[in-house]
Formats: sequence, structure tokens, C-alpha cells
Amino acid sequence: MGGDAEKWVLMVTARTPTNIAVIKYWGKRDETLILPINDSISVTLDPNHLCTTTTVSVSPSFDQDRMWLNGKEISLQGGRFQSCLREIRARAQDVEDKKKGIKINKEDWQKLNLHIASYNNFPTAAGLASSAAGLACLVFSLAKLMNLKEDNSQLSAIARQGSGSACRSLYGGFVKWCMGKEENGSDSLAVQLADEKHWDDLVIIIAVVSARQKETSSTSGMRDTVVTSALIDHRAKEVVPKRIVEMEDAIQKKDFPSFARLACTDSNQFHAVCLDTYPPIFYMNDTSHRIISCVEKWNRAEGTPQVAYTFDAGPNAVMIARDRKTAASLLQRLLYNFPPQSDVDLDSYVIGDKSILQDAGIKDMKDVEGLTATPEVKDSILSEKSKGDVSYFICTRPGGGPVVLADESHALLDSVTGLPK
Amino acid sequence: MGGDAEKWVLMVTARTPTNIAVIKYWGKRDETLILPINDSISVTLDPNHLCTTTTVSVSPSFDQDRMWLNGKEISLQGGRFQSCLREIRARAQDVEDKKKGIKINKEDWQKLNLHIASYNNFPTAAGLASSAAGLACLVFSLAKLMNLKEDNSQLSAIARQGSGSACRSLYGGFVKWCMGKEENGSDSLAVQLADEKHWDDLVIIIAVVSARQKETSSTSGMRDTVVTSALIDHRAKEVVPKRIVEMEDAIQKKDFPSFARLACTDSNQFHAVCLDTYPPIFYMNDTSHRIISCVEKWNRAEGTPQVAYTFDAGPNAVMIARDRKTAASLLQRLLYNFPPQSDVDLDSYVIGDKSILQDAGIKDMKDVEGLTATPEVKDSILSEKSKGDVSYFICTRPGGGPVVLADESHALLDSVTGLPK
Repeated sequence: MGGDAEKWVLMVTARTPTNIAVIKYWGKRDETLILPINDSISVTLDPNHLCTTTTVSVSPSFDQDRMWLNGKEISLQGGRFQSCLREIRARAQDVEDKKKGIKINKEDWQKLNLHIASYNNFPTAAGLASSAAGLACLVFSLAKLMNLKEDNSQLSAIARQGSGSACRSLYGGFVKWCMGKEENGSDSLAVQLADEKHWDDLVIIIAVVSARQKETSSTSGMRDTVVTSALIDHRAKEVVPKRIVEMEDAIQKKDFPSFARLACTDSNQFHAVCLDTYPPIFYMNDTSHRIISCVEKWNRAEGTPQVAYTFDAGPNAVMIARDRKTAASLLQRLLYNFPPQSDVDLDSYVIGDKSILQDAGIKDMKDVEGLTATPEVKDSILSEKSKGDVSYFICTRPGGGPVVLADESHALLDSVTGLPK
Repeated sequence: MGGDAEKWVLMVTARTPTNIAVIKYWGKRDETLILPINDSISVTLDPNHLCTTTTVSVSPSFDQDRMWLNGKEISLQGGRFQSCLREIRARAQDVEDKKKGIKINKEDWQKLNLHIASYNNFPTAAGLASSAAGLACLVFSLAKLMNLKEDNSQLSAIARQGSGSACRSLYGGFVKWCMGKEENGSDSLAVQLADEKHWDDLVIIIAVVSARQKETSSTSGMRDTVVTSALIDHRAKEVVPKRIVEMEDAIQKKDFPSFARLACTDSNQFHAVCLDTYPPIFYMNDTSHRIISCVEKWNRAEGTPQVAYTFDAGPNAVMIARDRKTAASLLQRLLYNFPPQSDVDLDSYVIGDKSILQDAGIKDMKDVEGLTATPEVKDSILSEKSKGDVSYFICTRPGGGPVVLADESHALLDSVTGLPK
């Protein structure tokens, strides 16, 4: 160890995307190591709209490991944080910053304390896989700080121990979490199927649905499913393996109809096994159901899928449109059927990539009020509009993997004190 | 044929109960004969509260088969009606009414026309298995009119061809529909497991839930499930057979905890395979989910099940309480959490066996307003009360099978004209 009177602070800031599974992960075969009972496949979401930024720092002046999430200090004592920190420290390498005159030998990392600050650019509580992005960003940024030699796939196996789906946030584009066979979990890691440029027609619209129901956490939910569902084994062993092969093929070929069919049916089946859990778990609500009806009716009317939908452990809908033109039509349909409450302005009701709003020809609330019913929803439940069932929409697209933000202006910690800015 | 100048009218009036499956029927292996892919078990509901009354009549003066449902003439041309009529006429016997001087030889039935009037003592559209009671009553009353030698079990195989679940309405108490093995369906029929006196502690409360969504018919729904669900085969072949054995055992032993666990998990699994259908089918809505939460929280708080729930192809909840005392507590909880809209009076909000209301100490709307939260629902979604989510409650119990109503005052057709009274 070296540096000016032990007062140095060494920092790394990184940004990591969130991801949405299109073949779902639900059920662990090992609770501690977080080993799943089936493979899963996800799409990484553009970090410009949904991401976690994390600054990790080390200094001999820090007297304990500390962490701040969205500006508020949180405990690092949880087993999952501790697993990640232990695994990363065990792989730490020598680090030298000649400019700052800092030298850390790999064995020093066991004694040095860390300060970590993390920030989500979207509401943490909205059920948008914030823990996935968060744990992935923690592992990625620490790996950079400690100069780990492991590649992102190997890092994903560490992130997995923090939050299962976090392992899929180590890559951009389309990512597969291979369940692996080893008891120690060494082969349960993420691989990239295709990067974000491979299929860049896709546009993603997320409906953040107002929930009146407190949700079952996914950790306890999937544990209950594994113990009580009479269908989960059949799903994991017989259904998912075939869908994984088909989904990989659909992604390689950019075959949207197959992609949509697989994503929708697998989302539905995940919610089916939740319902088959005892007591049953309901993540989707009536608004979620109406969004599905909206998409299904349109897909049927067009004769071929225009939009895929998928729902995680909550009522929010993630819709994947085959291209920008479809996304604009989808947004029109969504705004017509799910208008905002009267005190909400358009700018805060549709966030993210606002160019989709422009493509849809919607400049202000008057344009929303001027929307008319599309032919496929005549005489349907969608004719009943209810304001405020959706909190807001996020327009985004498939995006890239973790990156280091070299510019110190992005750092969440002060470079002198190592405390939140 | 005989009688006074061919002007005679011969009539039979019968009353048949509806039933609620506790191990569900969902999926046909033969669409025409209505042969199911698994056995099912039901509880017959007390016909004093939910039943169909049907008058069937024959006269040489009738020039065609005609039918009236709830006073309105409906077509008999549907394949299902025709199947039942054909099967019954084929088994018709000689009939003689010496008092009226009428004699019908069995071959005459092929030429004679029928008038049929049917009436449900509950809303047809409420999703309370009106077709089951209706078809069962049609078959039962015609069998009496035409003097069939077949027993109720054999008649159930005819009713089955009109509406699958109708076969279970040929008996009171607890009834099993054996799926059978024969291609012609001759062994796909109902048998009584226990009569209504066997387990007469049970009390049933039905919540008729306001639906804003038009439902998928069960006929097309189960067809779609069989074609598209990746879970239905596993359910039918691996899960249900074990549950049937366990449910028969629970009924014989009056083992309420097992009965409740099986009924609840099987209802949930039926809705799970509906959700696994493509496009997905949603029969339960947010109100259904809240009713389940209400029951599950209470059952958990008590440490052993107090109430079982089951949902058919719609949002209505059928709750089975272990005894009268539990039913009164259940009704208090339901009225607290699901109060009526302000313009509804108690007398029309809780119908059927009103003595449960008395047991619950509720005489008027003020008593409903005076109800307080029970300990298990603190800080839960149930603390949010929403008036009008339930249309009304029906209190009932397990009941008896079909009966002939000898008293002519019950007849729905005029004994001279053969037309609706």
C-alpha cells in the first residue's frame, strides 16, 4: 500500500443495464448459491433509459464497508452482498495508479474497506428489476476497481450470487443464463447470444402499472412455487428446454413471430405456475390483463404478431414491438386505452425515448384526447377506459452492457472524502 | 296413441340442482360426445337456493319441438339439445295415464313433439353453472315423461352430451364424473360418492362478482387450452388422478383440511392452465384475487383451513365453510371487506339461507357498517375496501339431487294448451 499519508481514495464508476427475461427464470435448485432450475433468456434494456450507476471506492481511511442506494445508506450485512464482496475480494489483483502514486497488492484487498454508492435512473420500487442492474453494477465496478482478470461471463457467476437475474445484466443485447450442472455453481453463468446491434429494429414500451396490491417478493415466491406447485417441475424439465432452443433460433434469425409467441407464452406460463403455487401468487392485475387483451386483439387482427409482451414479478407490462412504426401504433393504442389522470402531463406520462411519441404524432394532451378506437377493440373490454390504471410509460430499446464511466463527473462519491457527493 | 280427440297434454315437472366442481373438469378428448380428459368431483348445491325447474310436455297437437328458457322461446336446433333429445327418444318406453285415458307406445315418441319450459331461480348470466342444471333437468324430466328404465347414472351419460358438467347434477351430495374409457362414451358418467346428509356441517357462500370483462365461453376456452397449453396434459394425466383419490378419501372421512387444500389448489391449477392457454384466458379478476387473499390469510391465521374456495369459468367465488359458526364469521369478513354500494339493501345483498346472517348478528345495513377489521387483515390489501365489487352473496349448503314435482302448481306450462303459463 502506498500514497500520500494514506489519504488517497481510488474510485471506479460504472453503468449497468437492467434486463427483462423473455424465457423466465423461476425456481432455484440451490438457495444459497442461487442456482436456477432452468435456463433463461433476456433482452438487455437501453441503459440510457433504465440503468444503475455505481461508484465504488477504496481508501485506507475507510473504517468499514459502507453502501448508499439512491443517496440513502443501506446495510451491506445481507448474505447476498457479502457473497459478492467475498467472491470479488478473493479474485482481486495488484492495482497501481502511478499518477496518484497508489499501489495496492492483491492481499491488501482483504483489509481495505469499500465505499459504494449506487443510483437507479428509474423508480426502484416500480418492479423494473432494479436489483438485477444494481448487483450487476456492484460486481462489475468492483471487478474493475480490483483489476480482476475474469471476463464478464465469469463475473456474471458472481453477480448471480447477489441476485439471480443480475447475471444477465453483464452483457448487452440478448443474453442466456445457462443453469449449469456443477454443484458449486461455477458453470451457472451468462453468455451473450447476440449484441444490441444484431436486432436493432425492436422497440420496447414499458407500462408501469399502478398496483394496489403489495407483491410477494420473487425470492419467497419462487421458493413457494418450487415447494408447492404440481406444474413447476414439468415446466422446468419438459417445457423450458425446448423453448430455450427455439428462442435462441428466433433471435439468431430475427424471426419476430416466433420470438413473440415464445415470449408471450413463457410469460403466461410463469404466471400460471405462480397461480398454481399454494397459496396462489398473483402478480398481474386487471390492468395487466387488459394490456394483454389489447396486444392479443391487435396481433390477431393483423394476422401476425406485431408486439410481444412479458411480465415479471409485478403488474408492469414490457411490450416489444417489431419495429418503430409498430411501436408508434402501439403507443397510440396504449394512450387511447390507458389515458393518464387529468393532472398528469404528457412529458411525465411518456418518458424515455420521446421520439416514439413524435412518430405517433402526439405532441400534447390534446392529441391524446383526440385518439380514436382502433377497429380490433370494438365491443371489447378495452372500450371501457379507466384513467390512471397506468402510472406512466417508458419507451426504450435493446441496449448495451456494462461500461466504465471514466469521466469523474459521473462519480457518485467525492474523490477526496469518499462520501456521497 | 289415444285420448280425447288428440287434445290431451301430458306433462312432467322436475327440479334439478346446480353443482360446483371441487376437482375441475377442463378439457375434452371428444368434442361431440363431450368426453373429458380427466375425472372430476363436485358438490351439489341446495336446490332451494340454486336450481332449474323444467316442465316437459307432449301432445299430438304440438306441431314441433319448442322450448322456453326463463319465459323466452329459444332454439332447440343446437347439436347439444338434439343429442339429448335423440338419446332420450331412443330409450323411451310405453306410457299410460289411465286417469287421463292416454296411452303412448314407445315407437310413438319419435313422432310426437315436445314443449319444454325451463326456469332458473338465479340469474342465468351470473356464471353459476346454469347450463349444468338446465341440461340435467331437461334430461331428467324427459326421462320421467317417457318412462325411461335407465337409472340416474345412465341418464347422466345423456345429460353429459348436452353440457359436460350437467352429468354431475343428476345426484345430490358429492358426485364424481368418471371420465370413462369407451370411445362411445357409455362409461363416461356420474356416480354419487356420498349423499347430502353425509357431511351436513358444510355451509356454502357464493360471492357473485361484478365482471367488467366479457368472458371466454368454457366450451371454446377448454378447446383452446387442450390445443395450446403445455401444462394441461401433465395436469390431466399426472396431477388430477392423484387428487381424485385424495378427494374421495377426504369426503368419505369428512377431513376438512384435506378437502380444502385439494379444492383450493385444484381451482388454482384450473385457472393456471387457463393462463397457460394461448392467447391466455383470465376468468378471475382483482376482486376474485382479493377474496382468495381474504380466505388464505384467515386460514393461515387459524393454523388450519376454515374455508375452501373454488372458482369456475368466471370471477364468482364459491366458498365452503367447515361449519355454520365458521360460515357466520366468513360472512362478517366478506361483508366488511366487500360492502355493497350505498343504494343496495341487505335483503338483496345476501340471499339464500338468511339464517347465516342471523348467526353473524347482522340485521341491517348499520350492522354491516359497524363491522371492524379482523386481526389477520391488518396492513393488507384488504384494508382497501371498494364498494360494489361484489354484486351479492348467496348462502347455501350441499343439497339433494333431481326430484319430480308432482303438484301441478309447479308446472311452467299450461296443462291444457301446453304453452308457458
